Amino acid sequence: MSLRAGRPALRLKPKAERRLLHGHPWVFSNEVEMTAEAKALDLGTLVTLEANDGRALGVASFNRHTLIAARLLARDPAMEIDGAFFHERLKRALTLRERLIEGPYYRLCHAEADGLPGLVIDRFGDTVVMQLNTAGTQALEAPLIEAVETLLSPATLVLRNDTPARKLEGLEQETRLLSGNIEGTLEVQEHGVRFLADPLRGQKTGWFYDQRDNRQWATRLAGGARVLDAYSYSGGFAVRAALAGAESVLAIDRSEAALDLVERTAVLNAVGASVATRRGDVFRELERLAAAGERFDLVICDPPAFAKSKKDLPPALRGYRKLARLAAGLVAPNGCLVLCSCSHHVTSDAFAEQCARGLVDAQRAARILHRAGAAPDHPVHPQLPESDYLKSLVYALD
Amino acid sequence: MSLRAGRPALRLKPKAERRLLHGHPWVFSNEVEMTAEAKALDLGTLVTLEANDGRALGVASFNRHTLIAARLLARDPAMEIDGAFFHERLKRALTLRERLIEGPYYRLCHAEADGLPGLVIDRFGDTVVMQLNTAGTQALEAPLIEAVETLLSPATLVLRNDTPARKLEGLEQETRLLSGNIEGTLEVQEHGVRFLADPLRGQKTGWFYDQRDNRQWATRLAGGARVLDAYSYSGGFAVRAALAGAESVLAIDRSEAALDLVERTAVLNAVGASVATRRGDVFRELERLAAAGERFDLVICDPPAFAKSKKDLPPALRGYRKLARLAAGLVAPNGCLVLCSCSHHVTSDAFAEQCARGLVDAQRAARILHRAGAAPDHPVHPQLPESDYLKSLVYALD
Repeated sequence: MSLRAGRPALRLKPKAERRLLHGHPWVFSNEVEMTAEAKALDLGTLVTLEANDGRALGVASFNRHTLIAARLLARDPAMEIDGAFFHERLKRALTLRERLIEGPYYRLCHAEADGLPGLVIDRFGDTVVMQLNTAGTQALEAPLIEAVETLLSPATLVLRNDTPARKLEGLEQETRLLSGNIEGTLEVQEHGVRFLADPLRGQKTGWFYDQRDNRQWATRLAGGARVLDAYSYSGGFAVRAALAGAESVLAIDRSEAALDLVERTAVLNAVGASVATRRGDVFRELERLAAAGERFDLVICDPPAFAKSKKDLPPALRGYRKLARLAAGLVAPNGCLVLCSCSHHVTSDAFAEQCARGLVDAQRAARILHRAGAAPDHPVHPQLPESDYLKSLVYALD
Repeated sequence: MSLRAGRPALRLKPKAERRLLHGHPWVFSNEVEMTAEAKALDLGTLVTLEANDGRALGVASFNRHTLIAARLLARDPAMEIDGAFFHERLKRALTLRERLIEGPYYRLCHAEADGLPGLVIDRFGDTVVMQLNTAGTQALEAPLIEAVETLLSPATLVLRNDTPARKLEGLEQETRLLSGNIEGTLEVQEHGVRFLADPLRGQKTGWFYDQRDNRQWATRLAGGARVLDAYSYSGGFAVRAALAGAESVLAIDRSEAALDLVERTAVLNAVGASVATRRGDVFRELERLAAAGERFDLVICDPPAFAKSKKDLPPALRGYRKLARLAAGLVAPNGCLVLCSCSHHVTSDAFAEQCARGLVDAQRAARILHRAGAAPDHPVHPQLPESDYLKSLVYALD
């Protein structure tokens, strides 16, 4: 294999460069000339991508085992991929967050959309949590950490490398404290509200910044309302609803640890008296509440992904429809309903269709007030619209 | 033709009731048994819809000349359609707006989504502007006006019946002052900012409430920025950007009357010094600005609908792509771009694709920060997702 710009060259099949030239950042495995030399490359190796006629297209990381075989890092094939390179990309990402969000609580890096495929970084003040989700980022761990250290000088740096994506990439699962230490939970601030996150043991990086603006939006509907927050996790929607003047809030989750955080967060924000919790399976608890004749003015359902892979799609769609039906049945006359999906494999239109069916099943006329995705610290690459995974629909019911 | 509930019965073809039973509010002309009796009905007549087996499905208005032949008003076939009926529907719509929006400035009724097919009502304080966009609403003008008078007691009531939709329905074009009077422009408030609207001579009802929240969002990006507002109309984005601390704002529109409103509105909000206007064709002016080397930190393009009908679609898509290219070329490094489309015939995905292409044409890497539709006083019927006409995309560019 020839070297170009000091890196092995990876040749594409004829015409396979087209999508790249139209701004797309990926090469699929069936688009690569999978030579013996290509097969011999270590997972995550940096390569110079070449069109079939030999034109250099840029620098990418390569993993012969994954459907997305190469991920473009830079269109300049001569670009050095080092700590300084990552520092510049992260600096741009940081400037954007500082322009959009008050306080150092946000997703700093959202992979491809921030020009850094496979890299996720969440910031909790002076604690930073990184996820290296591809073999390419794993191979570049040292300069990536160097860039984060230089840019933010975090007191505490955590690797939450326990993501499903890493399994696909052939990488091991690990959670590692790189520097500093964490005693229990950290404080996160969102629009001035104080929350608690657990970066070592919580879901994902310990907090879901993607729902920040959707939580804000829901507070428009919470004043004076009886609120039900199903799949509450650590209380993002529940506590904000209480602070917005909800008459009462019931948070349901099946995790005792999550509900413990809900209760502590409610007390931290001086709304402990209006937030109750209930542990259980949400589908079953919604049925119980309905049977007991309970009704709410605002019902919020933000479940974990029902479709974790494409084959889960049919049951996932049925699940969203059923959830919409059960949740709608609990909404009081003229109340509101917030339905969310974070399944990558469920499109916005498919989700909206299942929700609409569930509303009809519940015999509730409704109108959509708001359709939204993730907050802007989770930007979307223009050529990867399918990465716009979060769907939030707000309905007003008759 | 038989009478049911005092109304002529309109029989559907076999199986044509299915969509209605799944919550959809329309019957298409090829789904109706178009008998001689049906053809003899006056445009807009109220009918009892019947499945082919004779089951009553509800009350609808009927227009044999339009593709959408029947629009469902109520699922109870015995429902009286009178001033009290409209009052109840409008009261629900009003309660929802009062819950969501501060001050009496909003779209009070957004047709099907508010349970009132064909009816649009915009409220400007004690002035109310109505649009009767279907033969059905035209036939019910008297009880509709009665309901509005009872609910709001407006000082001034205007019919802006000069919409393209009315031409399709076989209705005449007219603008009529029903009560009160309007001297020049009215004041509209949006998130505390004062604007000027002209309900008699302005576009549509004189103001575009649908962009309220998108204008608010754009202010996150305006602080300290050089802002270009292309297709400014009367300055919704421009003046809010100036108030949010823009270093300078340039508003471009081809209407002298619109630019006159921009200037008056800027003065009204004490930002006259930072808002400049330029009259001209936007495509040409963007090319001129580029040639002169001008660059902006925030560029906003909110054009009128490029696709007014399905046959306009190919040129409209090319137009959006070209606009994205020209606008992106004017964005300074690390600046932002807001691209909007209000074309009903252009889907959200198709619009995003053309914008992505335009960005590539301009050789500008970008990320999508925000995707949004219309403000919540323009709700969407769950079974009519295609009526979600407004698309707004916010990009951060490299």
